[in-house]
Amino acid sequence: MDFQLLAKGIALAGCAIGAGCALIAGIGPGIGEGNAVASALEAIGRQPECKGDVTSTMLLGCAIAETTGIYGFVTGLLLIFVAPGMFMNFLG
Amino acid sequence: MDFQLLAKGIALAGCAIGAGCALIAGIGPGIGEGNAVASALEAIGRQPECKGDVTSTMLLGCAIAETTGIYGFVTGLLLIFVAPGMFMNFLG
Amino acid sequence: MDFQLLAKGIALAGCAIGAGCALIAGIGPGIGEGNAVASALEAIGRQPECKGDVTSTMLLGCAIAETTGIYGFVTGLLLIFVAPGMFMNFLG
Amino acid sequence: MDFQLLAKGIALAGCAIGAGCALIAGIGPGIGEGNAVASALEAIGRQPECKGDVTSTMLLGCAIAETTGIYGFVTGLLLIFVAPGMFMNFLG
Amino acid sequence: MDFQLLAKGIALAGCAIGAGCALIAGIGPGIGEGNAVASALEAIGRQPECKGDVTSTMLLGCAIAETTGIYGFVTGLLLIFVAPGMFMNFLG
Repeated sequence: MDFQLLAKGIALAGCAIGAGCALIAGIGPGIGEGNAVASALEAIGRQPECKGDVTSTMLLGCAIAETTGIYGFVTGLLLIFVAPGMFMNFLG
Repeated sequence: MDFQLLAKGIALAGCAIGAGCALIAGIGPGIGEGNAVASALEAIGRQPECKGDVTSTMLLGCAIAETTGIYGFVTGLLLIFVAPGMFMNFLG
Repeated sequence: MDFQLLAKGIALAGCAIGAGCALIAGIGPGIGEGNAVASALEAIGRQPECKGDVTSTMLLGCAIAETTGIYGFVTGLLLIFVAPGMFMNFLG
Repeated sequence: MDFQLLAKGIALAGCAIGAGCALIAGIGPGIGEGNAVASALEAIGRQPECKGDVTSTMLLGCAIAETTGIYGFVTGLLLIFVAPGMFMNFLG
Repeated sequence: MDFQLLAKGIALAGCAIGAGCALIAGIGPGIGEGNAVASALEAIGRQPECKGDVTSTMLLGCAIAETTGIYGFVTGLLLIFVAPGMFMNFLG
């Protein structure tokens, strides 16, 4: 009984640490989208009349670059809210 | 009973470490937004009359780049304020 | 029996931490796709008439750059949903 | 009783490590804002008359880029000053 | 018998964490391929008539850059599906 609780504590600690690690993926979209925005600003600064074309492509591109950040967020939430319940079943 | 406390201590340590890790995601928006601002400044320096267009797109872009940093912050707060209570239930 | 549970707890913690680590791969596509989008925006800003060509190649390229992020996501899900069941069998 | 102290020690260690990790986020704003300032200086060096416009946008932009660093700082302070008290309650 | 199970649990945790770490390699191809795509887009923007040549070389180059991401993925899958069975034999 004692060891069962200890096992659960270790598994839960792992879930929490794993969730935190998964969010590190957010570094990527943060940098990438910032660079995309930077280029959009330069293009608008040079040719203000193409602001619409540039902005629509920027939004499309950022949506693509955001995906891996969302994967990380989803995995983090799974590790906080879904995995602990599943793992507790394995530990009886 | 003793092991229960030890298990709780380990689970709480995991939550705290995970919360810290989740915040590392903030590196990305910090760099990316800085680069976006840099390009905005160059565009304004070259064509001061387009300051409004550039600034509005800069704010839109930074809002997008900020998202993954906010995911990390939210997850960090979840791990500090929500997860410990949930996890304590699993540890009886 | 006691040690069996402890062993399971440690194995599950490993799965959760491993899943989180796997998602870190998402940094790459996030940065890379952002840079690709940045160049697309510059090209469109210079020659708005080639927006179609540039966008289609951008989407093709981002699909390629996304692959490693998907590998990480798939591995993370395997470590959360498949590996624990397999590992529990080894621990009887 | 001994195990209770051990559990508290582990939980507090986790808080301290997590707080340290959260501050790693400061890498991002540090680099990004530095780049923004660099571009501001170049723009002012080229066209000194636009110093006011450039400086005001630089300050706005740096305030945005600073946010993720502040998230990390706030989380770090929470892990040092708030979380230990909360966590000690869970450990009786 | 008890310690044998504990040893197996630790070994399995190591496999899972190692699998996650192996996937971190995906950062590289993600960034590199994005940069390659970026340059392809710039070339197409400047000389749209060479789109075919540029795209075929881009695909060849990305196939090369992808290799290390695939190494990481294969190693991750080996650590999840093959290594645990082998390692359990050693712990008989």
